[in-house]
Amino acid sequence: MKFSYCGIRVKNLDESLKFYTDIMGMKIVRPPSKLPLVGGTYVALKSPDSEQILELNYYEPNSPYAKPFTNGEDLDHLAFFVDDFEAAMKRFKEKGVKIAVERVDWWQRTKGAYILDPNGIWIEIAETTVENYLRD
Amino acid sequence: MKFSYCGIRVKNLDESLKFYTDIMGMKIVRPPSKLPLVGGTYVALKSPDSEQILELNYYEPNSPYAKPFTNGEDLDHLAFFVDDFEAAMKRFKEKGVKIAVERVDWWQRTKGAYILDPNGIWIEIAETTVENYLRD
Repeated sequence: MKFSYCGIRVKNLDESLKFYTDIMGMKIVRPPSKLPLVGGTYVALKSPDSEQILELNYYEPNSPYAKPFTNGEDLDHLAFFVDDFEAAMKRFKEKGVKIAVERVDWWQRTKGAYILDPNGIWIEIAETTVENYLRD
Repeated sequence: MKFSYCGIRVKNLDESLKFYTDIMGMKIVRPPSKLPLVGGTYVALKSPDSEQILELNYYEPNSPYAKPFTNGEDLDHLAFFVDDFEAAMKRFKEKGVKIAVERVDWWQRTKGAYILDPNGIWIEIAETTVENYLRD
């Protein structure tokens, strides 16, 4: 039994695809696929040189799963690790990305911030690597 | 910039750790670490032979992040892929795991179901592999 991906719901598939590809640099690794019985479409994304999979799930207005969109407490955050924190933050600002926390002061280990995706999901930005995250 | 992990919030760290290790078979790859300025604790998990990282985030009652727990629409589901669907479902029932959808009928490709984690997060169970998921 293997944890295989994290799937988020999106209100607008084009908008979220644009955000996660153009701004967050991910690539589509499974093109948008419709599930007619669900009334939905899903698409899978990966960052280059990373195995972590993010799935975007869109439900059509008449889908039984198209409940009113709310931001819950169950999804705490997604994390993206960067090589150059300042360059990443500069780019987010140029692209008009919403910043939730400009600079976190609770880590000794690295520079970090939180930005918001188009649906209000918190995204941690940290200047580190998975290897360092697992051992520091 | 790399997508590095998905972090969920948990109401009870022991309960969720027990669920994701004992029932879902994950291993702790970063032991629980406290963030005193946040009033929280985080721990990272992986399934054996998988690179996908799940982070559990617990906030103490007096943490500014300990907002009332709500299940939102932003986290659609987590997915776990299994070798033997019937064996996995039998084990979930023996362990008293809540079943959200006993058997999905909207995929042609494989057997699937949805179970609930201790905080009401939907978990897809599918008899497939990441390789098949990305190509089928």
